[in-house]
Amino acid sequence: MFELDPAFLPTSAALPGLALCEARLQLDARFPWIVLIPRIDRAFELEELTVEERAMLMAEIVAAGEAVRAMGAALGRPVEKLNVGQLGNVTRQLHVHVVGRRADDPCWPGPVWGRGTAATYDPDALEAALAAAAAALLG
Amino acid sequence: MFELDPAFLPTSAALPGLALCEARLQLDARFPWIVLIPRIDRAFELEELTVEERAMLMAEIVAAGEAVRAMGAALGRPVEKLNVGQLGNVTRQLHVHVVGRRADDPCWPGPVWGRGTAATYDPDALEAALAAAAAALLG
Repeated sequence: MFELDPAFLPTSAALPGLALCEARLQLDARFPWIVLIPRIDRAFELEELTVEERAMLMAEIVAAGEAVRAMGAALGRPVEKLNVGQLGNVTRQLHVHVVGRRADDPCWPGPVWGRGTAATYDPDALEAALAAAAAALLG
Repeated sequence: MFELDPAFLPTSAALPGLALCEARLQLDARFPWIVLIPRIDRAFELEELTVEERAMLMAEIVAAGEAVRAMGAALGRPVEKLNVGQLGNVTRQLHVHVVGRRADDPCWPGPVWGRGTAATYDPDALEAALAAAAAALLG
């Protein structure tokens, strides 16, 4: 039975679930950022998914990209580039990061993973980001 | 008409082409590493691909993962974790990195992109890596 790795809980907030994945907003105000976690027990690599699950994951990555763009727009910082990463070197449960990037963000042009410290969201900004992401994912 | 961005040429070596993507071995002996570049003119983001192209790309990412595992085995350093990244912050042409990681590699557990300097392959090791990757991709 699938259980979300508790490591995701302090670093992210729940968004509406998708057909395959749990979707979570990464609590780092530096970037509009969604993490997708397929609800598949003991999956660590893409190769462990069925072809159907892989197609669903790809569709949900594209949907998360739209939601990340909606978050960036709601926060007044439109996304210029999407970055997608499936690493899992630290938290092993299979998950995919979808991150909105801008040339003026603090990690550009490097990747965001393992760089610097997460910035705390202002409560109003977090509310706006959650609402924009949820609307995009449900839409 | 699709043309490979020349930025890929000095940093990677050609592997057998796949149905959708050019496949290239990244010339960095620190990691078994393949770059996939879909042969689609002026594509920058996954969302620009058709559903069929996305499914092909996902299949080729999994195939590249197998080839990266074969490279690691041929070099005596079996892959412990796959990392997949689609960034494009510097070289904009849509491309996907598939990288074999080990807990004793020089960037672990961080990502490989933008970290340190590529290590030159020993010619025999490069030949072995190219042969293993090609055999896996053609197999």
